[in-house]
Amino acid sequence: MAKRIVVVGGLAAGPSAASKAKRTNPECDVVLFEQGEYISYGICEIPYAIAGEAPVDKLISYTPERLREEKGVEVRTLHRVEELLPTKRRIVVRDVASGKITEERYDKLILATGSRPKLLGVVGEHARNVFTVKALADALILKQYIDEEQPKNAVIIGGGYIGMEMADALTTRGMNVTLLHLYNLPMNGLEREIRERVRAELEKHRVHFVAYAKTEGFIVDKTNRVTHVVTDQGSFETGLVVLALGVEPNSAIATKAGIRVGPRGGILTDQRQQTNIDNIYAAGDCCAVKNLVTNAMSYIPLATLASKQGWVAGENAAGGAAVFRGAIHAIAVRVFGLEVARVGASSEEALASGFDVVTESITAWSKVAMMPGSKKLWITAVMDRRSRRLLGVNVVGEEGAVHRANLFAVGIFHRSSVDEIAQWDLVYSPPFTPLWDPVLVTANVLKKKIGSPT
Amino acid sequence: MAKRIVVVGGLAAGPSAASKAKRTNPECDVVLFEQGEYISYGICEIPYAIAGEAPVDKLISYTPERLREEKGVEVRTLHRVEELLPTKRRIVVRDVASGKITEERYDKLILATGSRPKLLGVVGEHARNVFTVKALADALILKQYIDEEQPKNAVIIGGGYIGMEMADALTTRGMNVTLLHLYNLPMNGLEREIRERVRAELEKHRVHFVAYAKTEGFIVDKTNRVTHVVTDQGSFETGLVVLALGVEPNSAIATKAGIRVGPRGGILTDQRQQTNIDNIYAAGDCCAVKNLVTNAMSYIPLATLASKQGWVAGENAAGGAAVFRGAIHAIAVRVFGLEVARVGASSEEALASGFDVVTESITAWSKVAMMPGSKKLWITAVMDRRSRRLLGVNVVGEEGAVHRANLFAVGIFHRSSVDEIAQWDLVYSPPFTPLWDPVLVTANVLKKKIGSPT
Repeated sequence: MAKRIVVVGGLAAGPSAASKAKRTNPECDVVLFEQGEYISYGICEIPYAIAGEAPVDKLISYTPERLREEKGVEVRTLHRVEELLPTKRRIVVRDVASGKITEERYDKLILATGSRPKLLGVVGEHARNVFTVKALADALILKQYIDEEQPKNAVIIGGGYIGMEMADALTTRGMNVTLLHLYNLPMNGLEREIRERVRAELEKHRVHFVAYAKTEGFIVDKTNRVTHVVTDQGSFETGLVVLALGVEPNSAIATKAGIRVGPRGGILTDQRQQTNIDNIYAAGDCCAVKNLVTNAMSYIPLATLASKQGWVAGENAAGGAAVFRGAIHAIAVRVFGLEVARVGASSEEALASGFDVVTESITAWSKVAMMPGSKKLWITAVMDRRSRRLLGVNVVGEEGAVHRANLFAVGIFHRSSVDEIAQWDLVYSPPFTPLWDPVLVTANVLKKKIGSPT
Repeated sequence: MAKRIVVVGGLAAGPSAASKAKRTNPECDVVLFEQGEYISYGICEIPYAIAGEAPVDKLISYTPERLREEKGVEVRTLHRVEELLPTKRRIVVRDVASGKITEERYDKLILATGSRPKLLGVVGEHARNVFTVKALADALILKQYIDEEQPKNAVIIGGGYIGMEMADALTTRGMNVTLLHLYNLPMNGLEREIRERVRAELEKHRVHFVAYAKTEGFIVDKTNRVTHVVTDQGSFETGLVVLALGVEPNSAIATKAGIRVGPRGGILTDQRQQTNIDNIYAAGDCCAVKNLVTNAMSYIPLATLASKQGWVAGENAAGGAAVFRGAIHAIAVRVFGLEVARVGASSEEALASGFDVVTESITAWSKVAMMPGSKKLWITAVMDRRSRRLLGVNVVGEEGAVHRANLFAVGIFHRSSVDEIAQWDLVYSPPFTPLWDPVLVTANVLKKKIGSPT
């Protein structure tokens, strides 16, 4: 009997794991269960699809049929996995349409159950004009709602990166956007100066940013639509509400089966994406991930990590020996005209991890200053005085910020010192870069600040 | 008596060295001699100034007065250093205007004598409409010549990166450009597929690329203007000739004084930019540089290296202990609508250096394919099968090629294996990058090609 690899979850890590498993060992039977209707879609592109910038019909990378035909993976959508029975090497699956429950055997099991949007736990948040931006089905309904009802006002609750993308998208769709955030500045986890620039960019584009706003309730009309969001900072009239409060891991079936979880409930795995239970792997948003800067297990739900972990889990479930080293926490977002990126640890995280933290803010040009299209970049960098290692960097600017953040990301990944980074031999060409790239300027300023190694 | 640091040469490495020396030890007297009229100008911006894209009046970074006032460096332009007398710790200097010769003492000497454009050694190449693009004075005359005479046709001799920039610039100025090159494809040192794309881009923009063309002579009229360039591939009528044959180091005064030189005549130094003669440092285009990929001393005349070496020479001459590790050979150029970049060793260099060379060409999208502005990138990568190290990469495309080349540059600098690069944690945001960045795609394709480590 062929080895049977079962994958639970069909969004990012799941299809990645399933395809890789089949490719690694084509003799295996690979079956993927997904509780929803769709699999393998670009969740990160949804704000751009809502804005009309990306075509909705291209959001889906693989249909179940294509995954079967092209990758040899058997797909069962609308099948929810409700329980794991590790001692029997079986799982309990409910056919959502019929309600029928069956047990399915596995030789190797890969959990890619993903994450779900956090909710407020407030009455009214399930009204028909309150949306999250996590699943394709929800996004399609949101887009249709905007197309049909053309709301004038929107309230976004939560000022993280999804909140930023949705503020941009809904403004593009012609709405007056109010953004409610629990703190003084958007994008917690970035450095203060950078967050101030992001807030200014929001306000420049007429987003009404309400700081320190705690949502207390919703006023819902007879049609089951929220008309007002009530907060401790006042009440806001609206035709649409987006909840952008972040996500939490779908790890309940795992914990129930005795699988260990870490911070914020993410499933703990080793570098091979194996859990503490034999023959069970995990990958993607349901997992914790090793933070390569702090060395702690962290919860960093990102598509880039999900895809990589999926490959590793799939390869190993099929008999391989792949490794996923971990993450530095690398994110980027467009906020209207600004590129905003953060790589590595924040100054706060670095302090909490016991580093001797030095922080410095730098301004540099994206290209030779005199060339057309050259823009200012604002960079805030965090380093450790003792080891001289770069720990984290935020970059913001109208052009060239994201790619500079990626250069810093490589330095952080390689545990480079600022002295090493200052030696990097980068290209120089006036239409693209200045003689001293902003990355080198940053390293030199940091070197100067801390002085020579003793 | 204050320690006296003398710098010879005022273009890139010289002012960099002089400023850094003064900053390192403000007690020193720092004197810079330059044979020309100008110092410290952006030679790399000249093609863009000629095209009208960059303002000519901003080409100069520092005037002699500003370098004196802001950096405390004494500058003597129109003074040519003609001989070094190391045993006396003196140099022989000619005042170009008066012809007067004096001896100047030094405690530390920094040679930043730069490079000069190669010539053909053919009669007529000093005619008044034949130009090189190396010194500001020449460039100003070239620009004035175009402004006043408005030539219809131009011939560029040499298909390296200066040839590319000038083909772009002169086409922008409305000229019909013919590019004569000794080989089948432009940009020697890049990989064949990439060079084919560059040639196609030139031809798309109506540059007449003449392959295997050896210039045999010039037909010069009574006004001392070249009217025809005569080659073994025929004769080309022209109103303007640009010689873009590359450069060679100005190291004659160094060799005459017993300073050792390496390949192509570049002055040999250690990592502190010290020559084999006590108290004499060298930096910039007059130097050889350690190639960090092949470990050989190479001649790589680039402004990025000159600035870094200048800093190191200046700091060390003033009593510091700075180090310049070397170069990977990183260049980028815009060829009309294409970004073209090369970092690290070519497949040819890698073979000659004894690596077990594997080469692979990859196509990837610069952003999420469905997002507006996403463009194809063509990447050719060179690696070593034994060590699994990435050795060199060429990237070409309409958008995002240069910044990807810089990511590869960091990997090559850090001697990263393709396995390490595949683990890099980069940002992902649809308007800027795809889920799998082209850099990661490249690493994964290379991993697949060579199989698992044994």
